[in-house]
Order: sequence, then C-alpha cells, then structure tokens
Amino acid sequence: MSSDQDIYQRQGFGNELAPKAPFGLLIVDFVNGFADPRTFGGGNIGPAIECTRGLLSAARNRNWPVVHTRVVYQDDGTDATIMALKVPSLLALREQAPESQIVSQLEPIGGEYVLRKTNPSAFFGTPLAAWLSQRGVQTLLIAGCTTSGCVRASVVDAMCHGFRPLVVTDCVGDRSLHAHDANLFDMNQKYATLMPRDKALEATAEKAPTALP
Amino acid sequence: MSSDQDIYQRQGFGNELAPKAPFGLLIVDFVNGFADPRTFGGGNIGPAIECTRGLLSAARNRNWPVVHTRVVYQDDGTDATIMALKVPSLLALREQAPESQIVSQLEPIGGEYVLRKTNPSAFFGTPLAAWLSQRGVQTLLIAGCTTSGCVRASVVDAMCHGFRPLVVTDCVGDRSLHAHDANLFDMNQKYATLMPRDKALEATAEKAPTALP
Amino acid sequence: MSSDQDIYQRQGFGNELAPKAPFGLLIVDFVNGFADPRTFGGGNIGPAIECTRGLLSAARNRNWPVVHTRVVYQDDGTDATIMALKVPSLLALREQAPESQIVSQLEPIGGEYVLRKTNPSAFFGTPLAAWLSQRGVQTLLIAGCTTSGCVRASVVDAMCHGFRPLVVTDCVGDRSLHAHDANLFDMNQKYATLMPRDKALEATAEKAPTALP
Amino acid sequence: MSSDQDIYQRQGFGNELAPKAPFGLLIVDFVNGFADPRTFGGGNIGPAIECTRGLLSAARNRNWPVVHTRVVYQDDGTDATIMALKVPSLLALREQAPESQIVSQLEPIGGEYVLRKTNPSAFFGTPLAAWLSQRGVQTLLIAGCTTSGCVRASVVDAMCHGFRPLVVTDCVGDRSLHAHDANLFDMNQKYATLMPRDKALEATAEKAPTALP
Repeated sequence: MSSDQDIYQRQGFGNELAPKAPFGLLIVDFVNGFADPRTFGGGNIGPAIECTRGLLSAARNRNWPVVHTRVVYQDDGTDATIMALKVPSLLALREQAPESQIVSQLEPIGGEYVLRKTNPSAFFGTPLAAWLSQRGVQTLLIAGCTTSGCVRASVVDAMCHGFRPLVVTDCVGDRSLHAHDANLFDMNQKYATLMPRDKALEATAEKAPTALP
Repeated sequence: MSSDQDIYQRQGFGNELAPKAPFGLLIVDFVNGFADPRTFGGGNIGPAIECTRGLLSAARNRNWPVVHTRVVYQDDGTDATIMALKVPSLLALREQAPESQIVSQLEPIGGEYVLRKTNPSAFFGTPLAAWLSQRGVQTLLIAGCTTSGCVRASVVDAMCHGFRPLVVTDCVGDRSLHAHDANLFDMNQKYATLMPRDKALEATAEKAPTALP
Repeated sequence: MSSDQDIYQRQGFGNELAPKAPFGLLIVDFVNGFADPRTFGGGNIGPAIECTRGLLSAARNRNWPVVHTRVVYQDDGTDATIMALKVPSLLALREQAPESQIVSQLEPIGGEYVLRKTNPSAFFGTPLAAWLSQRGVQTLLIAGCTTSGCVRASVVDAMCHGFRPLVVTDCVGDRSLHAHDANLFDMNQKYATLMPRDKALEATAEKAPTALP
Repeated sequence: MSSDQDIYQRQGFGNELAPKAPFGLLIVDFVNGFADPRTFGGGNIGPAIECTRGLLSAARNRNWPVVHTRVVYQDDGTDATIMALKVPSLLALREQAPESQIVSQLEPIGGEYVLRKTNPSAFFGTPLAAWLSQRGVQTLLIAGCTTSGCVRASVVDAMCHGFRPLVVTDCVGDRSLHAHDANLFDMNQKYATLMPRDKALEATAEKAPTALP
C-alpha cells in the first residue's frame, strides 16, 4: 500500500493527534460470544482480551472513567435493528444469555459504566457521549472487538462527538486479520491515533488533570 | 479472503437485506475538491461521479427524495472538528470555496436537500435521519466518496437510524482502491446490500408505494 | 391567556397537524414510582393511567408498534445524568426497584418495546427514533407522565425526529395541574396535535396502511 | 403555585446545580425576526436582547466559547421540519432573509460559532454538543428566545448532553409572559440553575480552568 500512503500523505491525511487529558477507557463488546470462535469470535480477539487486562488495570489505578459495552437485544427480538436483519444470529445476544456477558477476565467493578447496545457504535442510541462530556473527557482509549465492526464504528463516533480516539492496537481484535489490518489503516489515516498498549499507557501517564468526578 | 468469507458465513454474517420501498438517494461529498486528485480526489472517484449521473437522473424520474452533502467549515475554522485536527487540509472546504461546491455533473435542483456537514457521516450533526423518516424512507441508495470514509460512515449510520443501506458499487469511489475494496467487503458482510447501478435500479423499480411527500 | 393566543395566532402558530398513518403509541414512564404521590406521582397522573388502558388496548387491536419507557439508573448510580444531580431522588429508580416497574394496569406484552432511559425524552440516548423509522411511523400518539417533564421532552423530540406528535390529553398527567395546563398550551401552539383519547382513536381509525412489520 | 412547590420539594426536585468551570455561552435565536413583534417577537424579548449585550461582552472578556443560533430553512423549503408544518410562517427564515440575521447588537465576531438550525433545540441536528465537549465545557450559560420554545428545548438538551444549564433569566425572553414564567418554573424544578445576569457572572467569575482551546 505504499502508493496509497503517498496519496494520503500528499493530501494531508494521517497527521498526529496528540493524546490530551482527561482520559477515559472504552472496552467494546468483549463478551463471551465474541471470545468464542464458534459464535462470533476468532482471529486475534483472544490475545486482545488478554492484553486488555493490563489496560483495564492501569485505567483503574489512574481513576479513569471506564465503560464496557455489551450487545443485548430484548428477549423477544422486538428491538431487532437493521443490523440484526443483516446478521440474525446476533439476536441470540439477550440479557441473560451467557454469550452476552462480559468475559470473566474483564469483569466490571462498581463505578464502571456497563452499556447495552444494539448497533455497532457504542455511542449510537446510548447516553455514552453525554456521560463522557459530563466528565470532561478529551481522549478516549478504545479496546475491544471487532476492529472492523464495533470498534471502528465507535472510533468514528467518538471522534464525531468531540473526543480524540486512541486505538490501542494490541487490545483490539477481529475474526479476520485482513479486516483488522485494513481498518487500522483507515483509522490511522483519518480518525484516530494508534498505539500499542504500553506506548499508549506511557503517552497518557501523569498528565493532570484527571477526569472530573 | 476465502477463509475469511468462510468464518463470516459460518457465524451468520453477509445475509441478503432486500430493498424495500419507499426509496431515497444520498449522494455523499461529490464536490470539486473530491473530484480533483490534486486536492482530495483520485482512484476511482471520477468514474463513480460519471456513473452517478444516470442514478440521479433515475431518482428524479421516480420522484425519490434526493440528498446531496458537502463538507463545509466556517470561514474562520471555528467549527473545526477532531477530524479537522487529524486532517487540517479539510478546513479549506469553506462555504464559497470552489472545492466545496457540488460537481457540475450532479448539480442539485429545486426540491433536493443540500446538507452541510463537518464529519464523515451525512447523518452526524445534521437533520438527515429526521428528514428521511418524515418521508417514510425504508431503503437508502448511497453514492459518493470516499468509500472508506464518508460513504462507509454514512452507510453505518443509515443502518443505525433504521434505513436499509443499498450501496451502489459503481457510484462510490475512493482515492485508494485497496481501501475501496476492503470497505465494500466489510459493508457487504455486516451493514448493507451492494449492487452495481443497473441492478440497483432494477431491484427498486416499480415498487409502490413511492416516498411520502 | 386570550391576549397570548392572539399573538400566537397572528404570528402563525397553532395550526392543525393532521394525523397521518402509519401510527405508533408511546407510553412514557407510567411506572409505580410515578403513580404514587409519595414518590413522584400526584395530580392527575392516576386518572391518566386509567384512561391509557383503553388506548393501549386499541393500539394492540390495531397492531400499532407500542413502546413503554421506564427510568432506570445503574444500581451503583454510575450513570447519573445531570438531571439526577438536579433531582437525586430519581436514582432510586433501579432495574429491580418496584418504583421503576411499569404499572400493572399497562403491563407490556410480547412484541412491545420496553425502553430504559435516564433523561426526560424517550428519544435521548435510546434507539427509539430508529425503531420507529424502521416501521415507517408517521404519527406518534403519546401518553404518560409527567406532562411538563418527560412527556413534553418526548413530544419535542418526536417532532424533531420527523414524527407528528399526537398528545392524548386525558392520557397524560402531571403532579402539578398548573404545569400540566401550561405545557399543553405550549405543545398545542408549537409542536403537536392535542386530542382526548376517544377523539384521537376516531381520528386514527381505519387509515391504511398500517405500520410496517 | 405554593402547593405545587410543596410537592416538588417533597419529591426531591428543585435542588441547586452549582456552576462548574469550564463555561460556555449559548445565545439562542436572537435574530431580527424574533426581535420584531410583527413577525415572531414581542413580550420581553427586546429587554432580553439588551441585557444580553453585557453578557456577551463578559463572555468575550473571559474567552468563553460562544455560540449563536439562527433558524434557517433552505430557500425552496425542502428541509421543512414537522415544526414548519405546524408553524409554516417559520419558512420565511431563509439564509439571506433579514429576519434570520442575528440582531446588530449581538453581531458575532471571529471565533464565535454561528449555527443554523431548523428545530427548537440548538443541539438537535447540529454538531453543537460535540463542539462543546471538544472544549471540555461543563456549564452552559443560556440566553435567547423564546423561553418557552427554543430556549427551553436547548436547556433540556444541554442537560441531556452532559452540560449544566445556567439559564440567565433576564437574558431570555418570550412573546408571552405567561409562557415565560411557566417555563422558568419548570426549568428551575427539573433541569437548570436560574440566575439573573449579574449574579450569573459573579457565580462564574475567576473559576479556573478556562475552557480548552
């Protein structure tokens, strides 16, 4: 894609977007159903979950606002979205289904926001943007899956809502590595800063002020 | 990507999403600046503009609601979004700048909605979803550029807002053919129906009722 | 307020907004906590709940899309909105609290959409507008409480999202009759059609087509 | 309304919502058409405009983000909203119409955001919430007209989007004094802090940090 990078660079894309405090962390759809290759998982999602453990731990130590999302449809499927017409298997993700529970490695604790959603973006049809604004968040670190689906949609919306998206590259995963790479490329050119976890934690360390209570 | 298609198919992705009347047409950012490879154009955007002439003509004959978008920032850049921090060259797209005028081949006529936007999606921060809902639109045909940028973001949002996205594959273009193909793949698996123009026009012909006035 | 009505009429407000099929029904916050004067109830909310029984019954007979809303905050209050800072007693409305369950007279049945919300409008931070658009709804009948709070906010948003709001005057209630009347006045001048239940059911009878499935 | 205030107080409404930096200023629809009693003006709108001069001047001295809104419909009325069906006279507010220009006393200067809108709320169908979030705004002072219309709708939405609304009582006006008072009552009980201008400026003085650039 070298010729592609040329045209992007020549046209002014791909600039740095420096992380800026206060920070927040969004973990997208790391639920059992997306951890399991027999349902919606596969590819590099497993390693991304493992890598996110340290990210979540750091976010807690730093008192960042933390958000987890789950895909949840009403038991009778009454709230099936157009996405659920396109991918009907998603309707199995119901309130009590094991597939729609957050993976045990990343279980939310008190004070963390657990959001139900029925569309790709964590922001669409949810109060997430308002919750982050209320806390003055300027940069949103994003982990989760899939890179080409709910992560990307959430990154684009984070940016639109006025937050700087920081995609933590080893904490996002996809059932398809091709799709993973292609979407990281797009986000890097147009929407977000990309860093692996350790670099992201370094770039966001000790930057006062912390998020508003 | 055959192994990728296997996993998508096995997990229930990529189903058909049949077009359903009433229909509407959205043309994303076919403005001079995106037609010109020296500013934001290139790749297969030129042919996509040419192909869209016939699509727009058919939409007019069928009395579909038609929307055109332009990227427009305030003259002093006061409304620069995070995207404009990432891609500062976009701020040249001002109200009177030649680059932000719709290409002459697709000039809007009376009764067509011309929307200013400052983010990728035609829906974000605009009244577009409400305008389509007011007309009862069920399926939104989408042309424009770029496939990997504002088209994809608009397709995802169209779906989230309750409309069936129909991406007209030869009427969308991108400065990067890799990005074009990768994004068509994602949209086909998860969000939209994809058809070339002539097939799309056939699939949407003579389906009463027409859109509400 | 006769002089007021003069100025509104002279300036072009207060026009009729004829109901138009397909129809939908939204019942706002008729939960135990708002039915009980000791928590958030009082005024004419009780009679409004009783009157809504017949409205809901008719909506079911006519196969309209039906939506019920509940105010629900996360058990630990992590998702407290600015409204909950202003009115902290609302945080008692948790998932399992008796106060946040829909009143027994109007218990939802399968196929009806039950929405959690944390703000006044049934549309804010929820996928409601998309759900109605997906069904092609053009006119939304609105019952619930309080007239001056969540009903009015939902009416304004319904209108903004492209739906014609029809406020069913004897099916909306408020702890304050002054506030009830003042808000009906505003909505009648600027945002909605107002009709008592029986007239509303007559005005919306036998108008094909019914809402989309 | 003393008995009303009793019930609100008993149920936990009407609490203080202390102003918190960073601050921003929103001036809603102070355009010629709403300043003139022959079109959409009257009541106490004139004095509110005069009072807002000092508020705007202070906001500029303090380097607050400042936003002005105008109601603007497309010249051919293609973007008529449901509100414009209810109040068709609004469609006269077009891009070049004198009625839709901001009053000369409050003319925007460089660096201030001038937003077009077609619905009551300054937030609906606009990028306003994102613009404020990007600047970390926590409290939004609100002036403009009409109290019972676009001001109230903007106050409710400001709150929903995570900002503390501070209604500057002598800088908001309405063609109807009854509607003005009734809506101030509602906002005070449920959504906002209310202060006259001089008290508001005192309450927000010298509170570091200032808004983000």
